[in-house]
Amino acid sequence: MLAEIITIGDEILIGQIVDTNSVFIAKELNKIGVSVYQITSIQDDKAHILQALKDAESRVDVVILTGGLGPTKDDITKHTLCEYFNDKLVQDKAVLKHVEEIFKKHLLKPISQVNINQSLVPSKAEVLHNDNGTAPGMWIKSNKTVFVSLPGVPFEMKALITGRVVPKILKEFDRPFILHKTIVTYGIGESALAERIEDWENNLPEAIKLAYLPSLGSVRLRLSTKGKTKAIVEKIISEESQKLYELIKDVIVGEEDDQPIEAVIAKLLTEKGKTLATAESFTGGKIAEKITKIPGASLYYKGSVVSYATEAKIEVLNVSEELINQHSVVSAEVAEAMAVNVRKLLKTDFSIATTGNAGPSKGDSNEEVGTVFIAIATPKNVISAKYMMGVHRERVVQKSVNKAFEMLRKEILNF
Amino acid sequence: MLAEIITIGDEILIGQIVDTNSVFIAKELNKIGVSVYQITSIQDDKAHILQALKDAESRVDVVILTGGLGPTKDDITKHTLCEYFNDKLVQDKAVLKHVEEIFKKHLLKPISQVNINQSLVPSKAEVLHNDNGTAPGMWIKSNKTVFVSLPGVPFEMKALITGRVVPKILKEFDRPFILHKTIVTYGIGESALAERIEDWENNLPEAIKLAYLPSLGSVRLRLSTKGKTKAIVEKIISEESQKLYELIKDVIVGEEDDQPIEAVIAKLLTEKGKTLATAESFTGGKIAEKITKIPGASLYYKGSVVSYATEAKIEVLNVSEELINQHSVVSAEVAEAMAVNVRKLLKTDFSIATTGNAGPSKGDSNEEVGTVFIAIATPKNVISAKYMMGVHRERVVQKSVNKAFEMLRKEILNF
Repeated sequence: MLAEIITIGDEILIGQIVDTNSVFIAKELNKIGVSVYQITSIQDDKAHILQALKDAESRVDVVILTGGLGPTKDDITKHTLCEYFNDKLVQDKAVLKHVEEIFKKHLLKPISQVNINQSLVPSKAEVLHNDNGTAPGMWIKSNKTVFVSLPGVPFEMKALITGRVVPKILKEFDRPFILHKTIVTYGIGESALAERIEDWENNLPEAIKLAYLPSLGSVRLRLSTKGKTKAIVEKIISEESQKLYELIKDVIVGEEDDQPIEAVIAKLLTEKGKTLATAESFTGGKIAEKITKIPGASLYYKGSVVSYATEAKIEVLNVSEELINQHSVVSAEVAEAMAVNVRKLLKTDFSIATTGNAGPSKGDSNEEVGTVFIAIATPKNVISAKYMMGVHRERVVQKSVNKAFEMLRKEILNF
Repeated sequence: MLAEIITIGDEILIGQIVDTNSVFIAKELNKIGVSVYQITSIQDDKAHILQALKDAESRVDVVILTGGLGPTKDDITKHTLCEYFNDKLVQDKAVLKHVEEIFKKHLLKPISQVNINQSLVPSKAEVLHNDNGTAPGMWIKSNKTVFVSLPGVPFEMKALITGRVVPKILKEFDRPFILHKTIVTYGIGESALAERIEDWENNLPEAIKLAYLPSLGSVRLRLSTKGKTKAIVEKIISEESQKLYELIKDVIVGEEDDQPIEAVIAKLLTEKGKTLATAESFTGGKIAEKITKIPGASLYYKGSVVSYATEAKIEVLNVSEELINQHSVVSAEVAEAMAVNVRKLLKTDFSIATTGNAGPSKGDSNEEVGTVFIAIATPKNVISAKYMMGVHRERVVQKSVNKAFEMLRKEILNF
């Protein structure tokens, strides 16, 4: 079963926004065994939309359209769908009632004609109720293809996908089972890895697809397959990944699932009833931000001292000026002192500290751009490590944040 | 002049990564007057790539392909381009030399056959030298359309776009001038706004395109046009936006350019030689992270106390326990105390403080989810404001961060 996602609107085409809607939809569809064959971003232009609908209908079973719904004049998806299906707009009473209620309850002002028009839908469409906004979702079945049209506002779209579209696809379509397994390697380049697993790769069953995904400091290997049942696909993926583990167990650091590493840490800390604090220099609050993004962070996370300036390390974190002068502000000694002191200051079990130079200039230290030190303090001890993270500012920060979480996870597991 | 961006690889289609490459390319092309007609994400499957190349050739002048280049076996773009152009791979000596140098200088190991193969390019391709990696970019001119193939690794792709592709397009194509102007409104809904500007919108010149972009707490109006010269497009956009200002000046809060608000603040503080500190509760370090993302932040930014737990507000920020008990930890009084104290602690001119409840549960306060207080302390005074930011955790944080920067900007300008 194949799907195509079509996003309508110029925002993506002029580079004004990142298309996070399609990622969300693709992920949700994959979970229920629907392969996304193509993602297409097009202008909100009638002729272009009509062409895209026609192309998609020839390729896939389900077309998910987002954008181009809403009360204003640049919203043309609904009218274009009518033209495509030779249909006309009719008023849906339930939608009208919902829009009226939103105005009465939340907006405290009289409803206007443009909002009343939100209740007009193509007569062939089945309405997908939108709890969070005035523009309804729509489900239109043509010969063999289903067209689903959703508003582009991310949180309205997300609720419609999980609450209406996915359940309806589950009910109305037979789907295969899709499984992806991503194995994370560290410390080996893409081509060296390819050489080591060449024989294995050449003998992979046809049903398995392998992808190399190089990213910051690591290469991920993704095995994908689909089949009739969960048992079948799990067996084939498990057999092949076992062989892979035997070949490269020295460079495998773990497997990736849907959860980012900070969610794994959140789970570990919550289960163990342990707490965490952070002291961040060049990572500038990014570690804190990632941790607090997880709901429930207040159960284990006390806070961070983002000591960007050297004075902040001295004044707030009580790192001694002498230590800084002796070893440089970018040093293992300072990282360790920051970790130990923030752990004490916020009375936690674990702490992370970072100090380094992300560039572009050398800042308060004489260390080369890309030099970073990361320290982890635990109830038993403090450890630190030095890394050279390259010369690209944002990548230095990203790689270091990932590395810090990786180090913390190990320490929590060892504890 | 029209372009299409084609991204090759399953990562986007299975929802594993967000397609930030296309946003970058779209933005850079728009800057030089190339309209992006469509963005297409497809699987790394030969038949699918061939079809996409054919479709794109029928629609646009330039096709930018990313992904599917690199040393491993799942990289098939190069072979597919050969098939499409009825061409064959030949060795490029300059690329071979570059790859050999990378191995000699950085990887300190012998070069392997898969890496030597990186120097094979279609004979019809002009090589675009890739300073940052082994896979070269390629420029292939067919009848009327140019095909550009780039590696998918973001920082290699970005350097190739700005260093090679954009200069070559500027040299080889005549392009119109494209101008977008985005006017930001605050405090009015999309449909109410549409009603107020209906007459103006109905009388807009054909050449101007208007888009409504609702986002967190605001609706942005984007006017777009293109023309022969910069002067022509500036005149038409300026005339129409002037009319718009007269109609809705009460709800316009500013204009948006390429710069995020934290970059505007960075510029203001640097120019005025003033410094900033932050104290963040529920925003969890996101304000610090946004500030330190801007290179040169160490010139004006001292740091943040991310006082996520109430103890951290007391222990690190010296907010009195009495004040917290009296007014609740989520209150104007506590926000103001945090702002005043962090300004003192880090000895800065300005400070931002946030306290609130982002949900999902009520946390340490009894305030409703979505209640937030933001305070700004200056050398003269401290101000604070209360906002109700809704019930969606991430959106509460995002909206509050935006609001805090907006408040700070006003205070800096008033100072």
